[in-house]
Amino acid sequence: MKLENKKILVTGGAGFIGSNLVEFLLARRGIKVVVYDNLSLGKKEFIAPFLKNSNFRFIKGDLLDKKKLGKEIRGIDIVFHLAANSDIRYGMKHPEVELKNGTIATANLLEVMRENNVREIVFTSTSAVYGDKPKVIPTPEDYGPLFPISFYGANKLASEALISAYCHNFGFRAWIFRFANIVGKNATHGVVFDFIRKLKDNPKELVILGNGKQAKPYLHVKECIEGMIYGVEKANDQLNYFNLACKGATAVNKIAQIVIQEMGLEDVKLRYTGGERGWPGDVPQVRLDPRKMKRLGWEARLSSDQAIRLGVKELLNQL
Amino acid sequence: MKLENKKILVTGGAGFIGSNLVEFLLARRGIKVVVYDNLSLGKKEFIAPFLKNSNFRFIKGDLLDKKKLGKEIRGIDIVFHLAANSDIRYGMKHPEVELKNGTIATANLLEVMRENNVREIVFTSTSAVYGDKPKVIPTPEDYGPLFPISFYGANKLASEALISAYCHNFGFRAWIFRFANIVGKNATHGVVFDFIRKLKDNPKELVILGNGKQAKPYLHVKECIEGMIYGVEKANDQLNYFNLACKGATAVNKIAQIVIQEMGLEDVKLRYTGGERGWPGDVPQVRLDPRKMKRLGWEARLSSDQAIRLGVKELLNQL
Repeated sequence: MKLENKKILVTGGAGFIGSNLVEFLLARRGIKVVVYDNLSLGKKEFIAPFLKNSNFRFIKGDLLDKKKLGKEIRGIDIVFHLAANSDIRYGMKHPEVELKNGTIATANLLEVMRENNVREIVFTSTSAVYGDKPKVIPTPEDYGPLFPISFYGANKLASEALISAYCHNFGFRAWIFRFANIVGKNATHGVVFDFIRKLKDNPKELVILGNGKQAKPYLHVKECIEGMIYGVEKANDQLNYFNLACKGATAVNKIAQIVIQEMGLEDVKLRYTGGERGWPGDVPQVRLDPRKMKRLGWEARLSSDQAIRLGVKELLNQL
Repeated sequence: MKLENKKILVTGGAGFIGSNLVEFLLARRGIKVVVYDNLSLGKKEFIAPFLKNSNFRFIKGDLLDKKKLGKEIRGIDIVFHLAANSDIRYGMKHPEVELKNGTIATANLLEVMRENNVREIVFTSTSAVYGDKPKVIPTPEDYGPLFPISFYGANKLASEALISAYCHNFGFRAWIFRFANIVGKNATHGVVFDFIRKLKDNPKELVILGNGKQAKPYLHVKECIEGMIYGVEKANDQLNYFNLACKGATAVNKIAQIVIQEMGLEDVKLRYTGGERGWPGDVPQVRLDPRKMKRLGWEARLSSDQAIRLGVKELLNQL
């Protein structure tokens, strides 16, 4: 669907990807944006640049507060549902937090949308739905079985399933994007963010979770948003679903090397916590098949390594 | 794992499949059974025959009541988690009921199990996780994508995903069975049950939901339980998952014919509500590939038609 002149609600719009999305949307003609965010991970400073824009409105609110959400959703044309506990490691120790902020939050949103006759939803899912060691590499969208090993992945899959049932039963249309790892401005977590923070604390040594050989595709947040918008505007099924990734992958060791280079450091001692995974629930090897988006006409221009280098530069300007 | 001398908690144990499972378990040597059921769909009369058995205990309790559940779960070796809103049609109009009694109930159970160091779970899932018009027929366990169209299916898939994450992170072992349609003694819903009730009310006419051409595999509840126990005792992965079904399928028109025959009726006028689906969320054509169970050494002996005829006879004795 075309986004021109639409009124869009972005859940999690004060977060990393959300704030980049809002910037992109406000630059387009006639789009009105409402950000609904509880600021648990999102930051007021990320949306500060938009507060004077008459097409922008910020609501501090929680998706678990259905009454407040209901008030804000009236008159909205399309919801971009990005809100989630994006700190996957934290979630591994707190399955109830992932359940609340993942599945239950999504279920609330869908019900409130239905009650207010808002039926277009864009959902940011994750490659974690494919679970550990998928038998098809790179992994395409139609891969099965789907047995996620993280609570983050489990609740994203649960949300996808709920969205699917709302499409069938209540005439919703949905665009589901299963993201690679995303890097760039306003990141609040993730390996690049962690490495920079650790090296600012102690430029002599870097502790690397796992054996450093974990490798995943990294997509720059600008390309992530560009791809997502392209998909929303070009894909017209009732339920659309795409991997959103570049080809290939970058190993954690390579990320460490890029961060060290960009920070101009030398002789950094690398220490490894060991094991194939960074933490329980971490999928050490991820390769996503981006062909479905390519058939639609979009592909990432930056390689995974290039996306990381650009993301590192941007975060170094910020942190 | 072997079930001999184990202490087993059955959620939903007063329901259709649950009560048949309890009967089977109590006939085996040294097994102790605790039924935990809120009697929302289950019936006291289904477990009445076991109340004098010293190996049996009934607890009226809700899975949303974590405190009560926690008290009962201490000392349990393995949980058979059957509780669900098995009335799929009702659930289509009440997504919140499916969420509570499906995903949230399962999440509560898993947390309480973890807190009490109970880590073996058997879960009854459904062919509805495969969604509408799967591209592979008969559908095997590794099929993807998984986009259920019913809230029942969506919440079963969500529960599977949570169980998978508990296996990976908290050392759980799980056996997931994706059921065909089950028929037989103590059924509380479903097409066979509906047809018998309608024809008892009015033996001249039968209203058939949809066009009558919907066709699914039907498994007799005794074979369902036999297969499930076989799978639990023989499959030893950390996360085991199986279709539990016969080959082939039976069309709704054929079910009507069998019920009419077994009731000794003649000249019943069939009226159709029309359309390919019985109701929104109904998957009209289901064929499940039972080969994974067959490789393990088990297969259904009754055909789908035979299972229905036996189920009809049993229900006619009961209703």
